[in-house]
Amino acid sequence: MPKIHRLARGVAVVGAGMSAFGVFAQKSSRDLFVEAFKDLRASVDQGLDPACIESLFIGNFSSDLFEHQGHLAPHLADAVGLTPRPATRVEDACASGGVALRQGVMAIAAGLADVVLVGGAERMTRLPTAEVTDTLATAGDTLFETPAGFTFPGFYAAMASAYMHQYGMKAEHLMHVAVKNHNNGAVNPKAQFGQTIADWMQGRITSARQKNKPVPAWADVLDFLHDEAANPTIAWPLRLFDCSPITDGAACLLLVAAERAGEFTDHPLHLIGSGQASDAPLHDRVSLTGLRAAQAAAHEAYRMAGVGPADVRIAEVHDCFTIAEVIATEDLGFFAPGTGYGMAEDGVTARDGARPINTSGGLKSKGHPVGASGVAQAVEVWKQLRGEAGARQVPGDVSLALTHNVGGTGNTAVVHIFERRA
Amino acid sequence: MPKIHRLARGVAVVGAGMSAFGVFAQKSSRDLFVEAFKDLRASVDQGLDPACIESLFIGNFSSDLFEHQGHLAPHLADAVGLTPRPATRVEDACASGGVALRQGVMAIAAGLADVVLVGGAERMTRLPTAEVTDTLATAGDTLFETPAGFTFPGFYAAMASAYMHQYGMKAEHLMHVAVKNHNNGAVNPKAQFGQTIADWMQGRITSARQKNKPVPAWADVLDFLHDEAANPTIAWPLRLFDCSPITDGAACLLLVAAERAGEFTDHPLHLIGSGQASDAPLHDRVSLTGLRAAQAAAHEAYRMAGVGPADVRIAEVHDCFTIAEVIATEDLGFFAPGTGYGMAEDGVTARDGARPINTSGGLKSKGHPVGASGVAQAVEVWKQLRGEAGARQVPGDVSLALTHNVGGTGNTAVVHIFERRA
Repeated sequence: MPKIHRLARGVAVVGAGMSAFGVFAQKSSRDLFVEAFKDLRASVDQGLDPACIESLFIGNFSSDLFEHQGHLAPHLADAVGLTPRPATRVEDACASGGVALRQGVMAIAAGLADVVLVGGAERMTRLPTAEVTDTLATAGDTLFETPAGFTFPGFYAAMASAYMHQYGMKAEHLMHVAVKNHNNGAVNPKAQFGQTIADWMQGRITSARQKNKPVPAWADVLDFLHDEAANPTIAWPLRLFDCSPITDGAACLLLVAAERAGEFTDHPLHLIGSGQASDAPLHDRVSLTGLRAAQAAAHEAYRMAGVGPADVRIAEVHDCFTIAEVIATEDLGFFAPGTGYGMAEDGVTARDGARPINTSGGLKSKGHPVGASGVAQAVEVWKQLRGEAGARQVPGDVSLALTHNVGGTGNTAVVHIFERRA
Repeated sequence: MPKIHRLARGVAVVGAGMSAFGVFAQKSSRDLFVEAFKDLRASVDQGLDPACIESLFIGNFSSDLFEHQGHLAPHLADAVGLTPRPATRVEDACASGGVALRQGVMAIAAGLADVVLVGGAERMTRLPTAEVTDTLATAGDTLFETPAGFTFPGFYAAMASAYMHQYGMKAEHLMHVAVKNHNNGAVNPKAQFGQTIADWMQGRITSARQKNKPVPAWADVLDFLHDEAANPTIAWPLRLFDCSPITDGAACLLLVAAERAGEFTDHPLHLIGSGQASDAPLHDRVSLTGLRAAQAAAHEAYRMAGVGPADVRIAEVHDCFTIAEVIATEDLGFFAPGTGYGMAEDGVTARDGARPINTSGGLKSKGHPVGASGVAQAVEVWKQLRGEAGARQVPGDVSLALTHNVGGTGNTAVVHIFERRA
């Protein structure tokens, strides 16, 4: 076990923004990033002169394959007026955004910059779905994994079936996760899906959206989710509503040296913990029901922050599939191994529950533009910790939050902990 | 102008290694990286237990397009036994390696790690040459540049013709750069090209390599380089021998917190300066005869190190094309604008000249596996500053060296300064 490392300088978040997430045929990742940056500028309480930004770190998985554009970082920097400031792309598959955030933290702590823009962007929907799936599969190991026929739904289906076998989880437990996250996304104006699963079901039944429509009984929702036509099996036991969508989107954060936060806002967030770890491919793991990299990243972040799982009030976790949320909440220590699967059904992880998870709607409902997702998680934390989350604001005092971002099948995991001080 | 930043902690280089550079049909970037890592292990004077390595940063331009493999970092980490340590890929086109080095410096200075492995890897020759050219073109701007028909030889040809127009340089001046760098590569056992241009010419003339062959007259070499069949025009004024090759290769460096260097070697290098900058696409520049990003990166690195161009004894610069070396030596302040083109002809930049440039052979002769090049530059500095460069060792005291790594058409530039202390 490596020794506990401490940041050489404190880091604060003083602004956050994101583009709308969805399917935007005409928008390149550059357009999406500009949209996110404009949203960020509006979020900085004292205003932001871009000339004060000293560095850009951009999370992006594969603009190479998605847009046939490499060297994205300086092009994005130029698009928001940062030339000639250094601009660096960071890639760790779907954890690219969270890892870019960590680079921004490092740049400030190292003394190389006081003011850093961290972004994430991915334009995915330009490609046909089969090519998107093939591109995402390159986040797996093309030596050992993909030649065996694995794509990502298959990887996570393997984890889901292992979890069911080991702990007795049923498909219905995962359906509760999907319903909860769509409930949250339905009140997030930036989310890809603006409806609950009940809305979805009623839209399908009535074929026209009704005002003041009655809330359907849970048994009816369950019937809908068990209907192979409405919710087809993608890779057993995962069905369509267990999978996050293909999304275009971007997000960004403004980080500053903590001692300079007051120049930007009286209500900064303090970034108090950062952890990152890696893991071998799926075939070389002791267990398929937890991610070692996520456990190690969380351990590092908790130790740096000097807090534990019980101190975390809300978390945005990497629910690329519903099973991934269940496993995440156990890897993070919120729930004991083998017990996380019941928490959505029991309401524990709902917005008004004891431990709200993915109040933004998560990747599942907000959308999953892969390189942007880790940054967008922190945008939700920014809103919740500042009491600006509107209809999805968590009740009561929210002062400590965590983000958990995973790449591949847990080959990379990165965890950050944020604190609002009174 | 941003304020001068200082590293919060000192950083030292205590090991360096590289694979052979060349065309290796059977080697993936993973194989190449393992080869480089083995070479590095042998370079650590007190030996290296991989368990002490706390983080990996890997420079890679586009394993996505070259190998259809994303998420390279954790796979490379696993291949050299680093799991579960964090592993991050960094991409800034052909500057990816130098920017990865900067991330390693940041991680240590930030207090997040004491011992960091920095690597670069690229497998390029698997693709047909036309696809390699197309992939490299994605480092340009696909919105403004590549739709106009630019590929990289075209970009640098535009800079070369602008430079000729402005300063009176002739094609022969660039030929002297190529001859000088092949002279250096011919005595670098890891280089892609193991022969001088004179060797090459004589091989062609005699069709069998002779021992003790006479050194040809310069006029004969010049005739050879002006022969369109032997040295065809690629993009006027650039000919084949003005261009770096397509290469498979990897390189790596071991960085540690300066106060721990003694655990690894009594002869570390101290990394005393780091600078990085970005620039807009080619159409949006004031001048084509210098790279603003390189000038800004050098300025930052010099200020951090507290040294100036005159203090630099040797430099490895980014000679993707011969004209790029000429422009680099001016951007770095070694020679006044418009005077650098004569320095190879005058012998100033030769191994035994006043300012040796690219003693390794440079990208031109050593080879240019794009994501690895910036790291391999530092491997040469490691050897020269420790007096271990063998037949290409620069005579006399060599205690201060610089590396200069460029991405795109100067959209990214990164400069590092290394010092050996008595």
